[in-house]
Amino acid sequence: MTREELIEQIRTKRSFLCVGLDTDLNKIPKHLLETEDPIFEFNKAIIDATKDFCVAYKPNIAFYECHGPKGWESLKKTIDYIPKNIFTVADAKRGDIGNTSLYYANTFFDYLNADSVTIAPYMGEDSVTPFLQHKNKWAIVLVMTSNKGGLDFQFTKDENGEELFKKVLRKTQQWGTDKNMMYVVGATKGEGIGEVRKAAPTHFFLVPGVGAQGGSLEDVANYGWNDDCGLLVNSSRGIIYASSEIDFAAKAGEAAKALQMQMSDILDQKRF
Amino acid sequence: MTREELIEQIRTKRSFLCVGLDTDLNKIPKHLLETEDPIFEFNKAIIDATKDFCVAYKPNIAFYECHGPKGWESLKKTIDYIPKNIFTVADAKRGDIGNTSLYYANTFFDYLNADSVTIAPYMGEDSVTPFLQHKNKWAIVLVMTSNKGGLDFQFTKDENGEELFKKVLRKTQQWGTDKNMMYVVGATKGEGIGEVRKAAPTHFFLVPGVGAQGGSLEDVANYGWNDDCGLLVNSSRGIIYASSEIDFAAKAGEAAKALQMQMSDILDQKRF
Repeated sequence: MTREELIEQIRTKRSFLCVGLDTDLNKIPKHLLETEDPIFEFNKAIIDATKDFCVAYKPNIAFYECHGPKGWESLKKTIDYIPKNIFTVADAKRGDIGNTSLYYANTFFDYLNADSVTIAPYMGEDSVTPFLQHKNKWAIVLVMTSNKGGLDFQFTKDENGEELFKKVLRKTQQWGTDKNMMYVVGATKGEGIGEVRKAAPTHFFLVPGVGAQGGSLEDVANYGWNDDCGLLVNSSRGIIYASSEIDFAAKAGEAAKALQMQMSDILDQKRF
Repeated sequence: MTREELIEQIRTKRSFLCVGLDTDLNKIPKHLLETEDPIFEFNKAIIDATKDFCVAYKPNIAFYECHGPKGWESLKKTIDYIPKNIFTVADAKRGDIGNTSLYYANTFFDYLNADSVTIAPYMGEDSVTPFLQHKNKWAIVLVMTSNKGGLDFQFTKDENGEELFKKVLRKTQQWGTDKNMMYVVGATKGEGIGEVRKAAPTHFFLVPGVGAQGGSLEDVANYGWNDDCGLLVNSSRGIIYASSEIDFAAKAGEAAKALQMQMSDILDQKRF
């Protein structure tokens, strides 16, 4: 998907919501466990119920991979099932030497046909650039993450006072553009999003941490907004586990709609 | 596998060689492509030919994952086929928020039953610790990598002059021990290994970059040695692609044996 197509979707649907598909056999409704592929059945129902309210889906690869080949089948079927006008994020946090990253890029862009994949930057340029070579595909680089451990290294200041996350922003902007690279910026670090926005004014941000992890949608919109919206705000557990009963899909739809309506208000306020 | 068992294997086999299974359908002998599972057939032959000369195998997950469910089947069969007295490294470079890292740990330790998995440290403590909770299993944390991009962030000095890789060493030693954590230290940065050794005197290092990437085995042994050997030196392409003909397994065995003999000399010199 191109940047222009993504922006058009946000404008049309009045939403910048990404629904996280962290599908866990221990948390999905019990009646689905009797089906042949419970993970896909769950995702299918969630997608049907939420697709009008979101512009992106983000399957978290760990939740599929732990089931081996069968999990990868559920993942492939899920990505195939998502309507093509909705952006897909393979949340995989990959990154290796160039020769190896090439294979990861093939996995997520060619085999799975996802629009984007999340990338850990520790190994530097040749671990990131193989994800920037596929037409209309995106690398989404970890910058400032929403977890407690995000404080361990990302805010370390160098000799010139530059924090590591800012160095990651500065260097990666030499490797990719705002048309093939986004950044992961956690919602739990309110003003931090504003700092990332200053350092990367035109890039889209994928923002996890709203909802279960405690981040506020208003803060994200205040600090992270740019002229093209520039935000994909993710909610996983708050939507897909809104109910663990037979009404799970309907409740997920309601939770997604509630967030979409807040987003619609924000888009109106911003005259977008 | 415990640390004591690993050390015993090194002593007995007179080797600290890890064979990297970066198995690529474009590089394996053509006659294998007609078999039902060419990747596993190749690995099986390589393992049979090299198992007397190495103490570890390291399948690189990217090369399996790019084939989807079928690749994961080949990977599972490969790990199952490796003799239980040989240490296995799932080279996956994973790492995510705690809740997600738990699932990755389950994947590699429970489902695949590998002894260890490589971990990217950018997301900090809660992204690493879930890999330290499984009995006799290991997290192998990226510290100083062998690729060019390793220079982008890992050597950044903080305000007190501490390089990022040293901070990773210092912090991670607060989370794990030398019995459940190792470090990835690239062979291409000769004296760098010595610096890592000073900061982590007792831990084992997994050292890629000898051979195709240009690192020297002598330098690695000079700078990285500790009282328990403390080294697993990896070679991938130099062994598994020693020949692309029908004699590929025999040639791989010869290449592995040549490295093992050099290692045996080093172990003798060190009176180990």
